[in-house]
Amino acid sequence: MSTKTLAIVAPAPGAQLVPTTIERRDLRAHDVLIDIVFTGICHSDIHTAKGEWGEAIFPLVPGHEVSGVVAAVGSEVTKFEVGDRVGVGYMVDSCGECEYCLAGTEQFCLKGHVTTYNSIGYDGEPSHGGYSRHIVVKDTFVCRIPDGIELDVAAPLLCAGITSYSPLRQWGAGPGKKVAVVGLGGLGHLGVRLAAAMGADVTVLSQSLKKRESAFELGASHFHDTGDPSTFDRLRRRFDIILNTVSADLPLDSYLETLRIGGAMVNVGLPATSSSYSPTALIDGNRILAGSLVGGIAEVQEMLDFCAGHGIGAEIERISADQVNAAFERVENSDVRYRFVIDAATIGAAS
Amino acid sequence: MSTKTLAIVAPAPGAQLVPTTIERRDLRAHDVLIDIVFTGICHSDIHTAKGEWGEAIFPLVPGHEVSGVVAAVGSEVTKFEVGDRVGVGYMVDSCGECEYCLAGTEQFCLKGHVTTYNSIGYDGEPSHGGYSRHIVVKDTFVCRIPDGIELDVAAPLLCAGITSYSPLRQWGAGPGKKVAVVGLGGLGHLGVRLAAAMGADVTVLSQSLKKRESAFELGASHFHDTGDPSTFDRLRRRFDIILNTVSADLPLDSYLETLRIGGAMVNVGLPATSSSYSPTALIDGNRILAGSLVGGIAEVQEMLDFCAGHGIGAEIERISADQVNAAFERVENSDVRYRFVIDAATIGAAS
Repeated sequence: MSTKTLAIVAPAPGAQLVPTTIERRDLRAHDVLIDIVFTGICHSDIHTAKGEWGEAIFPLVPGHEVSGVVAAVGSEVTKFEVGDRVGVGYMVDSCGECEYCLAGTEQFCLKGHVTTYNSIGYDGEPSHGGYSRHIVVKDTFVCRIPDGIELDVAAPLLCAGITSYSPLRQWGAGPGKKVAVVGLGGLGHLGVRLAAAMGADVTVLSQSLKKRESAFELGASHFHDTGDPSTFDRLRRRFDIILNTVSADLPLDSYLETLRIGGAMVNVGLPATSSSYSPTALIDGNRILAGSLVGGIAEVQEMLDFCAGHGIGAEIERISADQVNAAFERVENSDVRYRFVIDAATIGAAS
Repeated sequence: MSTKTLAIVAPAPGAQLVPTTIERRDLRAHDVLIDIVFTGICHSDIHTAKGEWGEAIFPLVPGHEVSGVVAAVGSEVTKFEVGDRVGVGYMVDSCGECEYCLAGTEQFCLKGHVTTYNSIGYDGEPSHGGYSRHIVVKDTFVCRIPDGIELDVAAPLLCAGITSYSPLRQWGAGPGKKVAVVGLGGLGHLGVRLAAAMGADVTVLSQSLKKRESAFELGASHFHDTGDPSTFDRLRRRFDIILNTVSADLPLDSYLETLRIGGAMVNVGLPATSSSYSPTALIDGNRILAGSLVGGIAEVQEMLDFCAGHGIGAEIERISADQVNAAFERVENSDVRYRFVIDAATIGAAS
């Protein structure tokens, strides 16, 4: 049993996305049917749709930055009611029983979590993401979007927001701490807003001076051009935390030297190639190189509540469904400030 | 003003070490004169004496794993008395005023710490290490060797011991934690003893099966041959902490995959070349790559007290001064279990 809904689909790796009709499962006891209002375009949507991250499941409906309103609930859903403002992020299922699920880190589920798209669910059916009018998700993977955040600026929080929030929390961003954000894109601009709201002193490290004013508007107190060779000398032993949102391969040693003793550089951007560093840069300073992958569902909710409390949303550019292919190109050219969100009401209307 | 003492010196980079006479400064108010009883041979002594770690100060008297007995104290020394059993490690001075000194991490002193040898002291004089009959050290850089540890097995604790102890403490080795020690040499064998005494479940990862029995005798509960390609598959997501004592470049991704979610691989061995890793190995597991450099003076004392409380000393082979050159060769061939200590009474006697 299933119901049809409108969606935007990549028929094959690298193909243009086109409008289509897909099926969503009928509600199970713990399912929530969501009328999608906005879906963010994450760079990983593009990598996946182009087959750049290995074999994907086609036809592919991308989208894991979903905001919307509850349209119906299954018989045993108590957490949500029709009309509730909700969001869905990177995952839609996990075993719920392993040590990592029990610890609230479902992204590391030992059975394997089910991602919002490009995944096979525990029922054997492929998952389809948020470039769609509707989605059906198990209630434990649905988060509440507080009234304080508009649904359009909320959507990107579900992936870009949590990806920045989780490592900032883990590594202790807060008053008295100096945080550098490398790269001012979808992830980085939220990293700046979040770190500033946590009370940290925020620096943006960017390849060019173009985004200098924006950095300050977002909440940074300092801006440095990494294209200037003297920058790294001037910043030696400066930062407690570096949040690296850049997917390109960076000269890690230069960045590591800007960390204070015991400081941590956390990578959330995923370069396609290996990274190299000098062991001395870590040892002579008790420094840390770390990685961080999104966050668990409870932490996503914590992040949304934090954002509502601090008036934080993503900086967005709204687009209609027929602009998605053009938007993909612009994302690839870093020509977006800082996130596209698709107005779901235009899906189908544009076909 | 100064007094003469016997020492073993490297006259030039790579030259054979020879007996000689050096001068030690007369005691200042806070100085302690130590009759050296034993000095460990650390691999870094060899790298430095051969000029492999950049330009060094010759003639060079190596040695930063010193145990001995207080022979005299300066007028304002209250912490030590003649006859006290003491040790000197990697450092003999620091500014004492910067944030890192005040935090007990003198190895990261902003003014620059003075190393026990191959350094210029704040008085402008070169420092000379523990391959000698006597040494003069500021009291704040002298540690007490508890009665529970013999001076010969205590000496290597002053560098090898603290180098393993500090990261194990920092990263939480203890009951319920799984610790892997990579490499079973001077550092590694103490890493095994310390981690086991902390209550962790200890695994040795070694390139060959030769040291299997020794690993268990030292306190490991598991041993795996990293030369067997299936080892890494079997160990996926196993360890909370990997203490990497190996200076050679390792296939880091294979090791990182043996870390549990959020686990840390700490490097204390210093490869001459850059290391490379796949960012995915860090991100998809919130994993950590870290470095650790010895430990502060208070932590060295804590480590010595811990070792005394748990009956831990280094596994050593005692040598006389005339065997030092041969011992260097054996260390370079990994032919020592696990640390040479020089009987200081033989210095000069052997010349």
